[in-house]
Amino acid sequence: MSIDQCIAQLRTLLLPPQVVTAGPEIVRLSKSLSYHTPHEPRCVVFAESEADIVAVLKCANSHKVPVIPVAGRSSIEGATIPLASVPTISLDVSRMDRVVALHEDDLDVVVQPGVGWMELEEVLKPVGLFFPPDPGAAACVGGMCGTNCSGTFAWRYGTMKDNVISLRVVLPDGTVVRTRRRPKKSSAGYDLTRLFIGSEGTMGIISEITLRLRPIPKLTCVALACFASIEDAGAAVQHIVKEGIDLQRMELMDSHAIHSINLSRGISTAPLAEQSTLLFELAGPSPTSLAEQLTSVQRICKSSHATLFRSASDAAESTHLWAIRKTAYFAAKRLRPDLPSPEILTTDVAVPISRLAEALSRTRADLASHSLKATILAHAGDGNFHCLLVVDPANVAEMKAVSAFRDRNAHMAIDMDGTCTGEHGVGTGKVHLLEREVGPEALGLMRTIKAAVDPNGIMNPGKVLARL
Amino acid sequence: MSIDQCIAQLRTLLLPPQVVTAGPEIVRLSKSLSYHTPHEPRCVVFAESEADIVAVLKCANSHKVPVIPVAGRSSIEGATIPLASVPTISLDVSRMDRVVALHEDDLDVVVQPGVGWMELEEVLKPVGLFFPPDPGAAACVGGMCGTNCSGTFAWRYGTMKDNVISLRVVLPDGTVVRTRRRPKKSSAGYDLTRLFIGSEGTMGIISEITLRLRPIPKLTCVALACFASIEDAGAAVQHIVKEGIDLQRMELMDSHAIHSINLSRGISTAPLAEQSTLLFELAGPSPTSLAEQLTSVQRICKSSHATLFRSASDAAESTHLWAIRKTAYFAAKRLRPDLPSPEILTTDVAVPISRLAEALSRTRADLASHSLKATILAHAGDGNFHCLLVVDPANVAEMKAVSAFRDRNAHMAIDMDGTCTGEHGVGTGKVHLLEREVGPEALGLMRTIKAAVDPNGIMNPGKVLARL
Repeated sequence: MSIDQCIAQLRTLLLPPQVVTAGPEIVRLSKSLSYHTPHEPRCVVFAESEADIVAVLKCANSHKVPVIPVAGRSSIEGATIPLASVPTISLDVSRMDRVVALHEDDLDVVVQPGVGWMELEEVLKPVGLFFPPDPGAAACVGGMCGTNCSGTFAWRYGTMKDNVISLRVVLPDGTVVRTRRRPKKSSAGYDLTRLFIGSEGTMGIISEITLRLRPIPKLTCVALACFASIEDAGAAVQHIVKEGIDLQRMELMDSHAIHSINLSRGISTAPLAEQSTLLFELAGPSPTSLAEQLTSVQRICKSSHATLFRSASDAAESTHLWAIRKTAYFAAKRLRPDLPSPEILTTDVAVPISRLAEALSRTRADLASHSLKATILAHAGDGNFHCLLVVDPANVAEMKAVSAFRDRNAHMAIDMDGTCTGEHGVGTGKVHLLEREVGPEALGLMRTIKAAVDPNGIMNPGKVLARL
Repeated sequence: MSIDQCIAQLRTLLLPPQVVTAGPEIVRLSKSLSYHTPHEPRCVVFAESEADIVAVLKCANSHKVPVIPVAGRSSIEGATIPLASVPTISLDVSRMDRVVALHEDDLDVVVQPGVGWMELEEVLKPVGLFFPPDPGAAACVGGMCGTNCSGTFAWRYGTMKDNVISLRVVLPDGTVVRTRRRPKKSSAGYDLTRLFIGSEGTMGIISEITLRLRPIPKLTCVALACFASIEDAGAAVQHIVKEGIDLQRMELMDSHAIHSINLSRGISTAPLAEQSTLLFELAGPSPTSLAEQLTSVQRICKSSHATLFRSASDAAESTHLWAIRKTAYFAAKRLRPDLPSPEILTTDVAVPISRLAEALSRTRADLASHSLKATILAHAGDGNFHCLLVVDPANVAEMKAVSAFRDRNAHMAIDMDGTCTGEHGVGTGKVHLLEREVGPEALGLMRTIKAAVDPNGIMNPGKVLARL
């Protein structure tokens, strides 16, 4: 077997503990955060440096052996899980976790792909800077580039595409490309940076990333608004977006999400009104600027028939209010006390903002008509929302119904000129939807580019683009 | 000749007035705004629709005839000028100038490539929206995508890459690709949108563009600060960027620029202090928010030793102050009263913001040591600046000195980890610098992609990538 020869050769190129073919590491890399069928890689290689990545790709390319880059293993759409049919090397870059250079005055930082965004946050806080994308806690910067993730700050600060200045990428043949220098803007040729962001390791492996940073706002304040219907909440969101109010964050939770949070908080805390709820984070240089934003947001919420509007009077209360959003993910499991170990399956559609209220309303109706238990969380300003479906993976009929719902929901978003994947990527989970969304012509062009950059097809096969 | 057969075939496919092979249109399309040696196309074709573009490209591709898309003819780096050695068809899309759909609530607009940004501004103003990129007055949206232009608003709102949602592109073989649907964010596959933005018509022709719009701020106000040295002005800029003050615009003019503006305004107006000058546009929802910004900016300017700080007390004075910046381009010609018809040659470097003051200072010293007459204008927050060199194109020795200066300046910026082209693109003017800037590996990858998308090499040959 070619992969065995490749592994034998890798053992001569790297240190023995870097090349693993059995044991818990193989099992670990067969899975990722979200529920997709696990498949074990044949071999896990731990890269300690860019030179290691070069060595592995040169070797794998010459043997035409598939390679999957992986760092935080928090992919939701199965981007880092090997295909069942293809013996694969998982190239784990999580040990490449150094902050290489912090350029405070230029508002940028150079990091290795295995740096977690939460660790990075701790490095940046003391110098008054932050990096906006905030996906799942385990995510590392390399994988965040791979899926073009975003999160709660994206409405204001954009996605990974807007927050990465430059990449170093190892191509399948071992060539190392630096996509761009460090100026804030440049028109020097094709945009290689954005070509790799969102490509999920299907054209090369990212070995270093230069991130754009932002100053931490001097003051922030959290406010909350409740609405009797999701349509009213959606109308408030649309109005706020249209007015161009520069809020830091705006998150929506539907009544089912609030119900699950109440269940998770228990009876020791006063229950939240189980209505569609918007959480706002306001940011600015002074109390006056915050007060102005608050007045505008409150005015709009009232005109959209908010049943309650409340703003935090101090930092502690802000933290307390935002904690509602922070607990929302795992709280969803409370909707299924019938299950000993419920799993969460997440959708990820986004629609033009004018269609958000309708999309949310139709989604909730669809869930109800199929008796599916789920909460809805929205990065509202971006028109992006997740249904957290609480499921029993062992129940075949239920999983079938959930799978059908996810596809219906994706098609609904696509029909609204939206996307089936706002921030989680394609992986294998959305591969069957990509052509419907972008059309056969765009898909064909993606295939043309993939074939040119990775002619042997060794880079994460079957992800983003289905195997033909 | 293959091109003659191609033209003959085009005459059968299009209406007679759409295919022009002699007369003023041929001369017109031999030139563009900035000074580059003119070369006539063999034929000009006027596209009235996407179907026309498809027909032309299919025909040209089958005959392997080069095609250059052109709309506003305002390219600065010669992107739309045919190569001397290659008989070429110029495909003029300026008649495709319709606003196709305005989605006010989604903050986007769909336009044809021949729409000028200034005409678009007039369409958007009544609905309270604007499109930030503001290059030269003649620029059309198609070409603005081609060069990834930006302008005075880019520090706050980004470049074309940040303000285009989606494109329709005709590939060399006539396939029409829609790069993306309309959600604000998406992780659905490779970023084809950004691949075409900045590719200067070398991989396909843009037939329709969906632009992201912003609400026009409720209030704006202009302020001005003067500094005895360019280093002081640069220090103020860096401090403002670091604090994250969300100004609408921040433009720098050096003392020579102010001198030229004084000359152009004549003795009827009180002369401006001939110092390095920053112009700020502040924007916000209320007088309070503007006053806060003003206080911060003034504090920073004073701490950077501003010799003067002045803010407009009303809208009329704001317009009056910003007019200083608006006249700066053509005013430069006043530096050469010795010439009957001086021309302006523009540089376009950008550096990381921490190097801006040094870059400006070294640039001014270089100009002085070679006795070159120029003003400097900077989109300061982006670290991007232009030397407007006022030249006599007939003076061979002078043009040689200017050309050498431009290269030195570009190399200086590249050595500072910056770019030789912040917003004007590569065209033919920067083709010899691209490898130095991005490296042979990135250039090789660009060539790989170009060859895959345009295998016959018919799309705007010799632009961005030098002919081998």
